[in-house]
Amino acid sequence: MNLKIALLAGDGIGPEVLSQAVKCLQAVEETFNHNFVYREAPVGAIAIDKHGDPLPEKTLNLCEEADAVLFGAIGDPKYDNNPDAKVRPEQGLLKLRKELGLFANIRPVKVFPKLLKNSPLKPEIISGTDFTIYRELTGGIYFGEKKINAEGTEASDLCSYTEKEISRIAHLAFKAAKNRKNKLTLVDKANVLESSRLWRKVVSKIGESYPEVKLEYMFVDNAAMQIILNPSQFDVILTENMFGDIISDEGSVIGGSIGLLASASVGTDSAMFEPIHGSYPQAKGQDIANPIASILSAAMLLEHFKLFEEAMAVREAVDKSLKKGIVTPDLDSKSQYGTNHVGDFIAENI
Amino acid sequence: MNLKIALLAGDGIGPEVLSQAVKCLQAVEETFNHNFVYREAPVGAIAIDKHGDPLPEKTLNLCEEADAVLFGAIGDPKYDNNPDAKVRPEQGLLKLRKELGLFANIRPVKVFPKLLKNSPLKPEIISGTDFTIYRELTGGIYFGEKKINAEGTEASDLCSYTEKEISRIAHLAFKAAKNRKNKLTLVDKANVLESSRLWRKVVSKIGESYPEVKLEYMFVDNAAMQIILNPSQFDVILTENMFGDIISDEGSVIGGSIGLLASASVGTDSAMFEPIHGSYPQAKGQDIANPIASILSAAMLLEHFKLFEEAMAVREAVDKSLKKGIVTPDLDSKSQYGTNHVGDFIAENI
Ligand SMILES: CC(C)[C@H](C(=O)O)[C@@H](O)C(=O)O
Ligand SMILES: CC(C)[C@H](C(=O)O)[C@@H](O)C(=O)O
Repeated sequence: MNLKIALLAGDGIGPEVLSQAVKCLQAVEETFNHNFVYREAPVGAIAIDKHGDPLPEKTLNLCEEADAVLFGAIGDPKYDNNPDAKVRPEQGLLKLRKELGLFANIRPVKVFPKLLKNSPLKPEIISGTDFTIYRELTGGIYFGEKKINAEGTEASDLCSYTEKEISRIAHLAFKAAKNRKNKLTLVDKANVLESSRLWRKVVSKIGESYPEVKLEYMFVDNAAMQIILNPSQFDVILTENMFGDIISDEGSVIGGSIGLLASASVGTDSAMFEPIHGSYPQAKGQDIANPIASILSAAMLLEHFKLFEEAMAVREAVDKSLKKGIVTPDLDSKSQYGTNHVGDFIAENI
Repeated sequence: MNLKIALLAGDGIGPEVLSQAVKCLQAVEETFNHNFVYREAPVGAIAIDKHGDPLPEKTLNLCEEADAVLFGAIGDPKYDNNPDAKVRPEQGLLKLRKELGLFANIRPVKVFPKLLKNSPLKPEIISGTDFTIYRELTGGIYFGEKKINAEGTEASDLCSYTEKEISRIAHLAFKAAKNRKNKLTLVDKANVLESSRLWRKVVSKIGESYPEVKLEYMFVDNAAMQIILNPSQFDVILTENMFGDIISDEGSVIGGSIGLLASASVGTDSAMFEPIHGSYPQAKGQDIANPIASILSAAMLLEHFKLFEEAMAVREAVDKSLKKGIVTPDLDSKSQYGTNHVGDFIAENI
């Protein structure tokens, strides 16, 4: 297969983990006789530094022409505590999601048995956890109108949703549930928000076309508790953008291995794959960042193009590195292995 | 001291747990020679059933005249899955908060050493946790304009904040931090939301008047992770209404004893005290609901009026019940004691 892959390394540890994912894709090319073409482009803080724009025109064009985007990480603390900054790295990511129409962010939350001991939760609580979050990614309060008055004393953000925005991701989530454990939990705040009531109405209607899927509703505050109290109750969680941001980050740490979790963001014509972890600036350039989440993002990319055997080869090489303890220090404080070494090991085992 | 206390029992287990709190207040009256007058009024689903209004005029008047409100719980599942319901029990609670001007919801998250084993988190993660959440309660997306178009295909909620709304609760939170461990963490989403950037600006300015307090900023998605990964890092958390709803419920379960957690909602002229748990309709009338959170709400009420010795007597009686194992089945599955018995035991020990 021929694939054009845009590489957006971004900030912090983004570049170093992304390189390991590319190594693995190159190993896949060789072993399975494919032809992938890679093109790099800047995004985030680094793009602001170089071009004054967190998503330069050229980067966007490259992504639009590509078959898929492999993303590193975004964000730099120098922008976080400056409420007056006019450009922010995150704007690049948000614009990219919007322009590419990546309306569904898909995050599997899975427990790696070997790493159960790293979980902050007790083993009896976390074991058996295996759910996937479908987070709406191009609507809601992220993209609603933002206002600040002239005196800078009053500010607002609008959270708005249309039936169409809800139904397209709902269908994806129901289909996923059908291929999994036939349960879908809609997380909202329908006892307070009008937009949540629209979500409930639209999703319950769509649910009628998926009679085999058990549909449940859960308020977001309760969901934040249930993910800790009883995470194995979930199969597919569907939710809006802001709640999804919070809930999926909460979900990502319960397994004790956020450095292993990847995500896909998909739309009608585009798809982007990235680790769940952030840019982790403190670790930048130190060869200590865990490359596995980025490598598993590449596996998700392969699956997206139905290269299942190839993806399996990547996943098995990752499992081997975990079993043999060829891992970065975040997974085993006594480990001497660095980002590059782990990446090499996995690529060689594909 | 003379106090007029409005009793709003509400729905589900509200009435049965509130009765136990009243027993304890009556014991305090006797022991310490005070004179409290109690007046009951309906709120929530039960008020809709009786009066067609989740917060009848009379109930509101009673609360306005009272020195403090003791609240049970609110909510009934028959309203939750009906997106078309025109009146909802929760509206009563929200209106009450707004009308009484209860702008700060204060929730202590504390670990009871005896109950550490009930925590979903590993003991080494949870031990030493002791923080308080200051959640803004009368602004933000809860009270912003809500819209739904005529076709019912597009809905929105506005999240809006003013400098004044932020600064009044920020001062309370900084003062609390000064009396605790001198650390305040502002939880927001300033990398995306205009309203969060206003929070950051206002709070950082106010922070200059509290130089002894270390001010930190944390994105809400990161906060949702940190509360599980390292909860003992927090002292005072300050946040807006919606984030506070999610984060404080998440925080309330990490200790393993949500049935023990109370909260205060305070404003300029009024104060309301209530358990953190909900109306728990499945347990209604079964004499199994844990009354301690409601009883500790009464202790917070006493503290609000500077009756510290009295509050301490209540807290010590609660500790005694925990130590002696006179607890409801949620804390000890082998326990034979019911709501009433636990309430009696605590009241007798005041
Ligand atoms: C960086 C930030 C804007 C982003 C978000 O909030 O969506 C991130 O937290 C994520 O979840 O991908
Ligand atoms: C019942 C509901 C409206 C309420 C809220 O969201 O504020 C509750 O969850 C709470 O936290 O007190």
